[in-house]
Formats: sequence, C-alpha cells, structure tokens
Amino acid sequence: MEEFELYNAPQSICSHKVRFALNAKGIRFKEYKLDLFSGDQLKPEYLSINPNGLVPTLVHNGFNIIDSLVIVQYLDELFGDVEAFTPKEPIMRARMRSLMAYIDEVPTPAVRIPSYNMAFLVHFKNMPEDEFQDMANAKPLRREFLLKFGRVGFSENEFNEALDRLARSLKRMQEEINFSKGPWFLGDALSIADIAMMPVLIRLEDLNLKYMWEDKPEISRWLELIKNHHAFQSTFYHGSLLTEQYPHLTENN
Amino acid sequence: MEEFELYNAPQSICSHKVRFALNAKGIRFKEYKLDLFSGDQLKPEYLSINPNGLVPTLVHNGFNIIDSLVIVQYLDELFGDVEAFTPKEPIMRARMRSLMAYIDEVPTPAVRIPSYNMAFLVHFKNMPEDEFQDMANAKPLRREFLLKFGRVGFSENEFNEALDRLARSLKRMQEEINFSKGPWFLGDALSIADIAMMPVLIRLEDLNLKYMWEDKPEISRWLELIKNHHAFQSTFYHGSLLTEQYPHLTENN
Repeated sequence: MEEFELYNAPQSICSHKVRFALNAKGIRFKEYKLDLFSGDQLKPEYLSINPNGLVPTLVHNGFNIIDSLVIVQYLDELFGDVEAFTPKEPIMRARMRSLMAYIDEVPTPAVRIPSYNMAFLVHFKNMPEDEFQDMANAKPLRREFLLKFGRVGFSENEFNEALDRLARSLKRMQEEINFSKGPWFLGDALSIADIAMMPVLIRLEDLNLKYMWEDKPEISRWLELIKNHHAFQSTFYHGSLLTEQYPHLTENN
Repeated sequence: MEEFELYNAPQSICSHKVRFALNAKGIRFKEYKLDLFSGDQLKPEYLSINPNGLVPTLVHNGFNIIDSLVIVQYLDELFGDVEAFTPKEPIMRARMRSLMAYIDEVPTPAVRIPSYNMAFLVHFKNMPEDEFQDMANAKPLRREFLLKFGRVGFSENEFNEALDRLARSLKRMQEEINFSKGPWFLGDALSIADIAMMPVLIRLEDLNLKYMWEDKPEISRWLELIKNHHAFQSTFYHGSLLTEQYPHLTENN
C-alpha cells in the first residue's frame, strides 16, 4: 500500500500548499506537526530527511521529497487524473512555471516580513542575544533573514518595502487574471500557480491587510473561489491561522 | 518553420543556462544581445515581453517564455528525444527540481555579490547618486539588491557571507554527487540541475575563486566533464567571461 507521511507545521505557508494538494487529490497521509519555534526542524533526525531545515517534507514509500512546489508537482504527476493542476500544453506549463518562480521569489519571501513583525516577534524578543545568534546561525536557509530581523523586528523601511513588493505582486496577479480572462491565473482551470499564491493571500487577510486588494475585484473573486474549493477547509484546520494562535492580532480588527 | 529568438546577454549566468540547452539540442535561434549596463532590459519594448526586466527571454513562434530554468524545461519538453535533461521517474524528477530550487535560492543569488564587487562596480562608482537611485528603483526584481550594493559595493561582511553561502553550496553539490555516485548530480545523466549550477562554477573560476573546490575532486571532475560537452564552447563564446571584459580581473591571477 502507498504510504504518505507529511512533516509540516499548521501555520506554515509552504505547508498549506502541500496540504491543499494532498486534500484536493484525496490522498490519505499521516501528518507530523513540527513546532518551528522549539526548533523541531533543526533536530538532526529532521535535517537527515530535509537538509534545508524547512517544512514541509513529504515522505512517500521511504523517499523524501522537499520544497513545497516540488512536492505539489510530484503529487500532480502521480495523481494527474484526479484533478490535474498542470496544463497539457508545453507553453501553458511554461507560463505556470514562470508564475510559480515569480511567486517564490517575490510575494512568498515578502510576506514573511509582516508575519515576523506582527505575529512571531513574541517568540524572539525576550531571548538572550547569544541564544538568538546561535539559533539564527543554525538555520541552513534562513540565517541571514533572521539576523536581519534581530529581536526587535524588521525596520519600518524594510516593512514598507515588503508591503510594496506584495502590492506589486497583487497587481501582477490581477494582470495575469485579466490576460487569461480568469477566474484562475491561467484561465478556467486551477493550477499550481494558484496553489502557490493562495497561502500568501490567506496570510495577508489573517494579518488584517486585506485592504491591499479592495480595488482588485479579480483577486477577491479568485480568493472566494479557492476558499470554496473542497480541499480548503481541511487544509486550514484550526490552528492554521495566526489569529487563532496570537490573539493580539485580532485587536487590530 | 519553428522560430526561436533569444534575448540575452553574453556574460549573464541565466543566459548561459539557456544557450547551453539550445546548443545541446541543436536548435537554431536568432540571438539578440542586450547591454544590461545601458539598461536595455528596462526599455518598454523589452518589459512588454519580460515584465521582470531580466534576461533571458525566449520567444518561440511569438510566445514569450521567461525565467531561465523555465525555458530550459520548456525546451526539454519540446525536444526530449535529442538529449533528455529530465529523468523519467517522478521521484528523480522531484530530486532534480529540489536541487534546481536550492541552486536558484542559494548559490545563484550569492554569486552576484562577488560579481558586482569584483567586476561590475566600475559601472556604478562614478554615477551620480540620484541617477543610481533612479536606476535601482526602475528594476522590477533587483531594486533592493542594487540599493544594498550602493555605489561602493557590498560590505566586507556581506561579501564574506556570500562566499560562505557559496562554500556551503559546493559542499551540498559534492554530497549530491557522492549520494548519486556521479559523475552528475543525479547519477549518470546530465540533468537540468547540472545546467543550473554550471554558470555559477564558471563565474567563480572567472573571478579567480576556484580554490573554493580544490579539496573537492568530485566538483573538479564534474566541471571538467561539462566543459567537454559539445554545447559548452558555443555557449561560452568570446565575451561571455568577465576576464575578457574586465582586464583588471586577470591582474589577480
């Protein structure tokens, strides 16, 4: 029997993409929840299956697959007949992959900055400096990010720059929907590019920043549609939203 | 008749990947060389085919394809029978894509830092501050990178951090070769992951930093092999190496 195990974290954006794909395809999987603030992802046993020290990792029949969009592509290749997320025409696949690359390079790292400043800061601000330095140094791929964050958060300038990158990304997504005539980024079928962007929008909403697309009805409609997908509720189970874990965020609402 | 046009720059790392794939597959293409320091990539006519304002772009029968590894995947899907760069098994494809993601995230941006400090600084150091700011602000995806660079180069700290990331990447590549038993990252066939890493190594060598893998015979052997590939010479035509354009670099040799 096929065996799927998912190492992930309830609130992690990259985990959301993979949970969505697994749920959409009706794949049964065993879920392991890592506590990222206790450093579960940096323990030797986890680093041996994921040298990047990041969630998620999918283990399928004993093989480790890392990097959220790589996992989603893998699942789509194995179960392309259930709900195909990859277009058949090479040119459309190229379009999808360019969008995936853009989403990975621009909005996905940008949304970490308001997430850290507005929600995760509490985990770091009372940490002694040497402990913080040791923790940052231990991160294979997030060292420089954390050192820049420090224990007081990103500067106002860095925060505003991140919001600016997010605003430009939303404009780009709006243009993609208009170009393809929507409702999804590539036209009538939901693709891996939509799955890649979904948790960024959910995070912005969670941080009470949804005003960012109030002048973009295409984005609101896109978000409503993906929220109505049968895989959405099981992906965003209780504990997946920051407002559920950090009650102070709701005070801004 | 099929028509391929490549917008690229002789010295650009991302252009090298695509030229290599085109040459390996024996595809005839019309080449347009952009002068990145004159801002050819930010002109409205180019931004209309590549909104990221980056090289390369492949135009195939009127369709624009952007992002170097997306282009290489596209070419490999169209011409998989010539010299396949993508393994057939889904699990090996996932392995390849994880490596591609890592190479895109860690060594590829890291190598820009020694490139700018050691070679490209001459283009910026006499630029008036407001002109430099305007130029940086016009870059859709490299604005923050250039503002950090400034007109005096990255700090010693940033420079050393980049070299550290490159050293860790070389170690990771060595481990991949050992795991697969080589000579390529995934075993006996050259894949897109090798093509992704190739120009990073060539750039390091060009900057006289090849001491970085003198204790890693697997990497030296890998580099020798790819240099002997029939597509290599036509990819790195005269003008593709920085030492050919910036004579001061050879003074360190």
